[in-house]
Amino acid sequence: MPNEGSRSGLKFAPVILAGGSGTRFWPRSRRSRAKQVLALDGERTMIQQTLDRLRPVADVGDVWVITNKLLDDLIAEQLPELPRAHILCEPVARNTAPACALAAFLLEKSEPETVIGIFPSDHVVKDSEQFAKVIRAGVGLAAAGDNIVVLGVTPTQPETGYGYIELGAAIADGKGDLQARLVRRFTEKPQKERAEEFLASGNYAWNSGIFLWSARTLTGAIREHCPAMAPLLERIAAAYGTPEFERVFAEVYPQCENISVDYAILEPRSKKGEGASRIFSLPADFGWNDLGSWSALHEHHMTLPEYCNHKDANVVQGASSVVIDSKGNYVFAPGMAVALVGVENLVVVQTEDALLITTRAQCQDVGKVVAELKSVGREDLV
Amino acid sequence: MPNEGSRSGLKFAPVILAGGSGTRFWPRSRRSRAKQVLALDGERTMIQQTLDRLRPVADVGDVWVITNKLLDDLIAEQLPELPRAHILCEPVARNTAPACALAAFLLEKSEPETVIGIFPSDHVVKDSEQFAKVIRAGVGLAAAGDNIVVLGVTPTQPETGYGYIELGAAIADGKGDLQARLVRRFTEKPQKERAEEFLASGNYAWNSGIFLWSARTLTGAIREHCPAMAPLLERIAAAYGTPEFERVFAEVYPQCENISVDYAILEPRSKKGEGASRIFSLPADFGWNDLGSWSALHEHHMTLPEYCNHKDANVVQGASSVVIDSKGNYVFAPGMAVALVGVENLVVVQTEDALLITTRAQCQDVGKVVAELKSVGREDLV
Repeated sequence: MPNEGSRSGLKFAPVILAGGSGTRFWPRSRRSRAKQVLALDGERTMIQQTLDRLRPVADVGDVWVITNKLLDDLIAEQLPELPRAHILCEPVARNTAPACALAAFLLEKSEPETVIGIFPSDHVVKDSEQFAKVIRAGVGLAAAGDNIVVLGVTPTQPETGYGYIELGAAIADGKGDLQARLVRRFTEKPQKERAEEFLASGNYAWNSGIFLWSARTLTGAIREHCPAMAPLLERIAAAYGTPEFERVFAEVYPQCENISVDYAILEPRSKKGEGASRIFSLPADFGWNDLGSWSALHEHHMTLPEYCNHKDANVVQGASSVVIDSKGNYVFAPGMAVALVGVENLVVVQTEDALLITTRAQCQDVGKVVAELKSVGREDLV
Repeated sequence: MPNEGSRSGLKFAPVILAGGSGTRFWPRSRRSRAKQVLALDGERTMIQQTLDRLRPVADVGDVWVITNKLLDDLIAEQLPELPRAHILCEPVARNTAPACALAAFLLEKSEPETVIGIFPSDHVVKDSEQFAKVIRAGVGLAAAGDNIVVLGVTPTQPETGYGYIELGAAIADGKGDLQARLVRRFTEKPQKERAEEFLASGNYAWNSGIFLWSARTLTGAIREHCPAMAPLLERIAAAYGTPEFERVFAEVYPQCENISVDYAILEPRSKKGEGASRIFSLPADFGWNDLGSWSALHEHHMTLPEYCNHKDANVVQGASSVVIDSKGNYVFAPGMAVALVGVENLVVVQTEDALLITTRAQCQDVGKVVAELKSVGREDLV
């Protein structure tokens, strides 16, 4: 499928970040079965959905995945069209800055004007047409000079778990649902009161973690803001495609600073001021949800057509179900006849070796279960 | 093992009623896996525990079991010492009166003075020594004339699901924890207010469902109070041991009235008056619990030594468990790593094909699940 970028002469290379090993979907998610390779809301896994969304705007042959050794075979299996050489396994996890920058140094060698898109692999998007429209607009904006584009989600609640973007002046040529605005400031996970102010002001967006910039812009930013990291990544990029690559990657990558792209580049660059930083936020209002917990997955299901009319708000994923006097529950128990009697707002998740029983209100504490399992040596369960 | 009855020249034949097909322990209990053949509180099944309790007071060769075709092979397997001919399968369920009386007509043929004990197969008893003492006393009392002995449990709460016995005069030769009293009246499942009055008066006991009487007394009572039933059971008893037995049993037994021994015999006989009826209640205070629900099973576990010191009152039967901010839960999930996070007073029970999620307060409604499964044709699950 030809993509917009190609047609207009622009090259667009999406980089899917898939190294996460989250614990928030335990017991389904495990180290070797992280959230991004799970099918949490249908037939396709999170990373398959991520690639599917990109098909209208990119050639699959231009997509890269950065992950780790525990997941790469499974990802290669789930994304069979992706060139195997485009799946890079970090020898150690080093947060998002080195991962994003590595792709930029690789692409800078041959095509420095390529626009790179950074895409987390474990989010859901309900309106994929709007997603494609936004990405096309963002690619155009990122290609038009030394611009950085971040996709900002209009906040709906004073969420304290997200980064916030303070929005500045609108740019002249945007309009409507594609109106880009200059970024004034980034604020990581605020306190509740602060988040409420942000929400009330109407002048803030959630940082979606989706970024667009040319390879040249990103390598330039790394050279400027992370001068120690740049030469390390240049060495790795130089070895790519040679028999030395694995060895160099394993030796050099761990020396990179363990830092997010937000802290490494966006925040220091934003300090140049609203105009000079050339960081733009584009509205990411395409039904974005980062599915940060079982409770978020329940909310997501409530917005899906097959559930949105259920007045009792139960999501039961089993072979069959009997529901009596119960509402607001999320149950995952494949193959099971599930019976709910007089229960509300529970989360119950069963795998072949584990059974989690919690509530929608407390399910974010499931990380404590994983921590305890680790502390008692139950590596088989984490 | 010699038994007290034999030593004193009395013959004692316990009859274990094991035809029940309760639904209250769904999904563990099914038609072909009823509560009495389940190990709910340890290694031994309910019916095995019932037999174990009787060993000090009876010869296993004198024990009878009345059950049905769905359960008899499993019961024979679980009670290998029991003579196979002593396991009788009702062709249809006819409540307790025909079942109890059948045993009496069988034994009346050869040894009419034999004392028959009726024992439900699905109760728990914590103090089996006291149980044996009470049974010995009851056998003596039942043997001493045309007496009926019922074991009465001192009530601890205004339970509306039990039958109540109003107690009359104490008899002269009883004492202490074996003080028998004449029975004044039987009252089936009272309303809450009435149950509270009973409890407050101190003059009532719960009907445990355990009865003792000689074969002659019981057949006499049947002839008197159930004149239509007596000749039917005589025909069946006459065929026992002949090649005709199965055919006669299948033909004749269904003609018996479907009625409990309480309604058929105890209530009409008690109307003769406290003295004339010769019905005695003996204190059954040996830690009796009829385990009528998952919640009752949770309470029972709380009294067991391995649980009684758990201040969080969780009973988790799985391969392992992690418990965070949770209390008062009952979880049965064999082979599973169970994690509880922020939940209280839940009942979660998993089998290989079903998962029940309810609360201790609502678990008595599990019968509604079974009813719904039947109504939608899921015979495989009931």
